Amino acid sequence: MKMNMLFNQKAKQIIKDTLGTSKEKIEESFVAQEKRFEIVTDLLSDKSINNHKELYKAYLKAFNEISAKLDSIDKASADKNHSDFRSVKLDETFNMNGAYLHELYFANIGDSNSQINMDTLSFMRINRDFGTFDDWQKDFIACGKSARNCWVITYYNIFTQSLMNCFIDLHSQNVPVGMYPVIVVDMWDHAYYKDYLKDSKSYLVGMMKQLKWNVIEERIKKTDKIGQILRGQNV
Amino acid sequence: MKMNMLFNQKAKQIIKDTLGTSKEKIEESFVAQEKRFEIVTDLLSDKSINNHKELYKAYLKAFNEISAKLDSIDKASADKNHSDFRSVKLDETFNMNGAYLHELYFANIGDSNSQINMDTLSFMRINRDFGTFDDWQKDFIACGKSARNCWVITYYNIFTQSLMNCFIDLHSQNVPVGMYPVIVVDMWDHAYYKDYLKDSKSYLVGMMKQLKWNVIEERIKKTDKIGQILRGQNV
Amino acid sequence: MKMNMLFNQKAKQIIKDTLGTSKEKIEESFVAQEKRFEIVTDLLSDKSINNHKELYKAYLKAFNEISAKLDSIDKASADKNHSDFRSVKLDETFNMNGAYLHELYFANIGDSNSQINMDTLSFMRINRDFGTFDDWQKDFIACGKSARNCWVITYYNIFTQSLMNCFIDLHSQNVPVGMYPVIVVDMWDHAYYKDYLKDSKSYLVGMMKQLKWNVIEERIKKTDKIGQILRGQNV
Amino acid sequence: MKMNMLFNQKAKQIIKDTLGTSKEKIEESFVAQEKRFEIVTDLLSDKSINNHKELYKAYLKAFNEISAKLDSIDKASADKNHSDFRSVKLDETFNMNGAYLHELYFANIGDSNSQINMDTLSFMRINRDFGTFDDWQKDFIACGKSARNCWVITYYNIFTQSLMNCFIDLHSQNVPVGMYPVIVVDMWDHAYYKDYLKDSKSYLVGMMKQLKWNVIEERIKKTDKIGQILRGQNV
Repeated sequence: MKMNMLFNQKAKQIIKDTLGTSKEKIEESFVAQEKRFEIVTDLLSDKSINNHKELYKAYLKAFNEISAKLDSIDKASADKNHSDFRSVKLDETFNMNGAYLHELYFANIGDSNSQINMDTLSFMRINRDFGTFDDWQKDFIACGKSARNCWVITYYNIFTQSLMNCFIDLHSQNVPVGMYPVIVVDMWDHAYYKDYLKDSKSYLVGMMKQLKWNVIEERIKKTDKIGQILRGQNV
Repeated sequence: MKMNMLFNQKAKQIIKDTLGTSKEKIEESFVAQEKRFEIVTDLLSDKSINNHKELYKAYLKAFNEISAKLDSIDKASADKNHSDFRSVKLDETFNMNGAYLHELYFANIGDSNSQINMDTLSFMRINRDFGTFDDWQKDFIACGKSARNCWVITYYNIFTQSLMNCFIDLHSQNVPVGMYPVIVVDMWDHAYYKDYLKDSKSYLVGMMKQLKWNVIEERIKKTDKIGQILRGQNV
Repeated sequence: MKMNMLFNQKAKQIIKDTLGTSKEKIEESFVAQEKRFEIVTDLLSDKSINNHKELYKAYLKAFNEISAKLDSIDKASADKNHSDFRSVKLDETFNMNGAYLHELYFANIGDSNSQINMDTLSFMRINRDFGTFDDWQKDFIACGKSARNCWVITYYNIFTQSLMNCFIDLHSQNVPVGMYPVIVVDMWDHAYYKDYLKDSKSYLVGMMKQLKWNVIEERIKKTDKIGQILRGQNV
Repeated sequence: MKMNMLFNQKAKQIIKDTLGTSKEKIEESFVAQEKRFEIVTDLLSDKSINNHKELYKAYLKAFNEISAKLDSIDKASADKNHSDFRSVKLDETFNMNGAYLHELYFANIGDSNSQINMDTLSFMRINRDFGTFDDWQKDFIACGKSARNCWVITYYNIFTQSLMNCFIDLHSQNVPVGMYPVIVVDMWDHAYYKDYLKDSKSYLVGMMKQLKWNVIEERIKKTDKIGQILRGQNV
């Protein structure tokens, strides 16, 4: 995996070590790099897709700004009632989640020839953990209909070591700890309102019919190996 | 790793397959099993520790009840304004996080001879990702002072592939997606109020002096391997 | 003021007393009655307005269902980790706020001849509490740009006994206690995305230019009297 | 009512006008003044009470600091993803609610001769809106057991024009719009953990037996007059 987004501090150090550039001079743009996505789908208007990409850029920009701020923020006066540190850390989680979830979403939608084969690991793991593929679909749709502006996700839970569905509200609320996301659909109003108004179900079902199962398969394969590591097995 | 907590559905299936027991007859107690912890510390009163164990049991009990409910809940009427499905899924995340985070917390505190060696992976990774060990400490304390009833955590971020600190509010708010927790301290009022009242800093600094670094080392080793898998390297 | 929305229990009692109808037989539709709004504005498409009215009805419907549920819910097993009572009460606040705020919003927008006179109480109170009318506008817009799917509100604060601005997230988060709303604009994505996509500022500024100041004036007059009562003065 | 807490901007203006003092020179202490409370109860230890008063002061201090900050904050760059304005406004609500609710709480507890008379308005209104006094008690306790670190409140709802119970989480979550609080009990762990650990029900029931009904009666009387104003009646 080419790691296109690097954590601020680490990235700066690597660049500094490599180029001999002083930390102060490194442009923010080096830090969390924007990924390019070609989203080809008849389910969304071009205006809606372009608008969505702009939102993604905004999360990325905020995340970078926050990472830079945290390098020099006053930590001694951190306080739970009110402090810059608390505020900035809250927004770090919000924008970091916003940025990464959009990347995962853009990368796993828009396959008009979408098809899941029964001999894939994805199919087997979904069956193992949800009963049947149809059960997964019903549960995923139920989660999508329950999200208050946010995400519906099939994730690998590192504690239960199985796939589960969840919905997230506002990027950082109702988030399971130990989640590795494998199927991600954006359920914010901003994702579909231009084209569907309140009919979120049509949007969601449409998206599920165009999932890029080859992308999902690669993610699922990784979760299987992560599970082996967590159980102390050889990979 | 011996997996003491199994996800409801999977566990039931395994038991069903093995014993030929019908799904309906499986006792809840089979599902998410309570772990036993010996917490030996001069930092907390026995009453406080026993009380805390009872809280952990309550989260586990609620998580089990919820898992059972979800087996037969009405998914067709899932709705974001109001539905049983939404409500129960919200509490699933809350109690699941509550249960697992308490396990991680109990397991990594209470070593009166606590010591981190400079040749451990923990020490090296903390230095790599926070600058110095002292920087990690300052950031961890700042996060602890910023949490509104909840958790301060050093976690491995699967996206940035580095260690970061965060605080969580009320178990499931302000949670980074893709988090593998490695150092966990409970900052709910319930953790320290009996013994410290509002002096949360004394409690937190005390806890940090008694961290079980051997436990943390095992967690960090796993995160290193997870990172290799995420980058497509051989483990 | 004609009170079009009555609280469940009270409404049932009144109807029961008046008509001799048994409590059980009262139709839900009697309880929280839908208000009709004519929203005439060139700022929003008809599709967007109709969609918005449907959302309002859905909040009202959920609020009524919840009120009915609460009449017979199990209160003895109320629990903060997980209980029907907690879940339903959370959604009561969410949908009640959703219903009432939409009524206030619909009632105070869409005046194409909008004008605030300098001899109105509205103008005087805004000047007293914000410095100048322009300061209020800037603060209101800043709040509108800060809301994460929700509301920007000028409200009379019963504690400070003055007008303040706030934004609310998701209907029931970040809500000041003791708030009497006087100017209300919906900043959920659902309010403007069909027509404006992410350009929320154009929508907001447009709405502010079409505020129904005669409606707001009536609200402000009431807050002035409420203030007198709070200070123990004769009204 | 003597108004001991004044809103920042207004207070400064009044003081400035009266004394000719420059805005910059006004001490923060003028702005939101601390109230003194004598809390006499056998239900809480002195340590716990003193600790609680310190928490109240901290909320007040943060609220004052925030009010001062807001006078000169950058509003033009207000943004929902990340901005100082959003962060500070969030904490304004949190600390303002924290300060006022503690004042209401301290003022209505600790009467060892607590008694509610059947000819009081409080008793009549509670009966009108909850059915019976006993129904109110059960509902209030159920709310108290459902709060996740926060408040249980009987409030006058300006929309339904009746008394309702609610619980609030973390000061500013799950807050009904249009709430005038009349009976307030603190259900944060910080209120009772020193003396009761997780036995919150004993604490709550104890508090309910020592409510200052004379204080509550004054509040209820005001809500009755507010209701008359809202209905356009003469007071």
